Amino acid sequence: MKQRMTVVENILSANDRLAEENRLRFDEAAVYGINLMASPGAGKTSLIVHTIKRLSDQLSLAVVDGDIATSIDADRAAAAGAEAVQINTGGECHLDAIMLQGALNQLELTCFDLLLVENVGNLVCPAAFQLGTHQNVLIASIPEGDDKPYKYPTMYKGVDALVINKIDLLPYIDFDMEYFQRGVEVLNPGLVTFPISCSTGEGLDAWLDWLKGQVAGNKSAQKT
Amino acid sequence: MKQRMTVVENILSANDRLAEENRLRFDEAAVYGINLMASPGAGKTSLIVHTIKRLSDQLSLAVVDGDIATSIDADRAAAAGAEAVQINTGGECHLDAIMLQGALNQLELTCFDLLLVENVGNLVCPAAFQLGTHQNVLIASIPEGDDKPYKYPTMYKGVDALVINKIDLLPYIDFDMEYFQRGVEVLNPGLVTFPISCSTGEGLDAWLDWLKGQVAGNKSAQKT
Repeated sequence: MKQRMTVVENILSANDRLAEENRLRFDEAAVYGINLMASPGAGKTSLIVHTIKRLSDQLSLAVVDGDIATSIDADRAAAAGAEAVQINTGGECHLDAIMLQGALNQLELTCFDLLLVENVGNLVCPAAFQLGTHQNVLIASIPEGDDKPYKYPTMYKGVDALVINKIDLLPYIDFDMEYFQRGVEVLNPGLVTFPISCSTGEGLDAWLDWLKGQVAGNKSAQKT
Repeated sequence: MKQRMTVVENILSANDRLAEENRLRFDEAAVYGINLMASPGAGKTSLIVHTIKRLSDQLSLAVVDGDIATSIDADRAAAAGAEAVQINTGGECHLDAIMLQGALNQLELTCFDLLLVENVGNLVCPAAFQLGTHQNVLIASIPEGDDKPYKYPTMYKGVDALVINKIDLLPYIDFDMEYFQRGVEVLNPGLVTFPISCSTGEGLDAWLDWLKGQVAGNKSAQKT
């Protein structure tokens, strides 16, 4: 077991160094990077598609899509109007910094204001691998149930913002929002949270305003 | 990278040996074991609770619950009337055969007809670790979306039965059942499938009948 631990630790520390290199590249190009994580089917791609459609007249967007197989998500992002690069992890359960580095090599980073990275659908493993983005954002979804912060604490602890998707399904599902939010608050006090529905569009304005604010803040920070 | 691969291969082959040992223990005790896998929130615990409530007058059931944190699921299984053992994986994204072995040591296996193992909520990593159970069962759920077989092929390929939960939400969600099932059929032709709703009870009879048939078949196989 000791040998395994050492190897895992070495992998994580190598990953952190590569994540720092990725961040340098983002900052040199003045592009703001977001790592979107979620369970399978929570709505990562839907949120990306809405974001592209609503912001592409104001910002230049690129998307990097991580999946075990297929290019379904990158195809959807490209159809919505963004430059999209697909990473097929070939079975790996998360993106890591070197996979993102390979994707960045395929993009002319200085052409973009915002890069959205769609991680592999998984509430566990992606939390352990920094990619070098400016923010880690988690998308929860109502049908997953209100106990998820309690059962996946590492993910909820490590993120900078939380989107709660599929609020249009609240009338049909037994979901106690107060219990859910109490769990989040214990792990990540004051976490900025956006309840939304990608189906009805409810709540998307707040998410998009926050995103534009983050990108603008990053631009002016890079200039100074 | 080579060192990492070797370590991972050694872990997997050690796991397979321990899975065989677990299977021997199941067979000696004439208990039928099922490994339930799914995304977070697809309804593993709900299905287990319904199964306990409906079958506990006919079968003696035990449950092993794998979670990263908390004993919420084992508490629900115990409240429903089954003997329940919790495994907290302490961050690991899947159960493996040695974790199950530890749980089996806490159960008087000969007292049971059926053991349901609830894996960690994850559509990727649990597929790589056999536990020694007789069947691997995947629970998909409607809100996850119809593209999941295409995006998580290893999981869909490796299972012996498929439960499709939350069919009561079909009217509210854009889910193309034909597209979903076409994806399943390519990966796992003829896979036995149970569309159900744990909320309304629809489809549960077929699942329970199948389960009873499996347990009865196992009992008579052990006697001969």
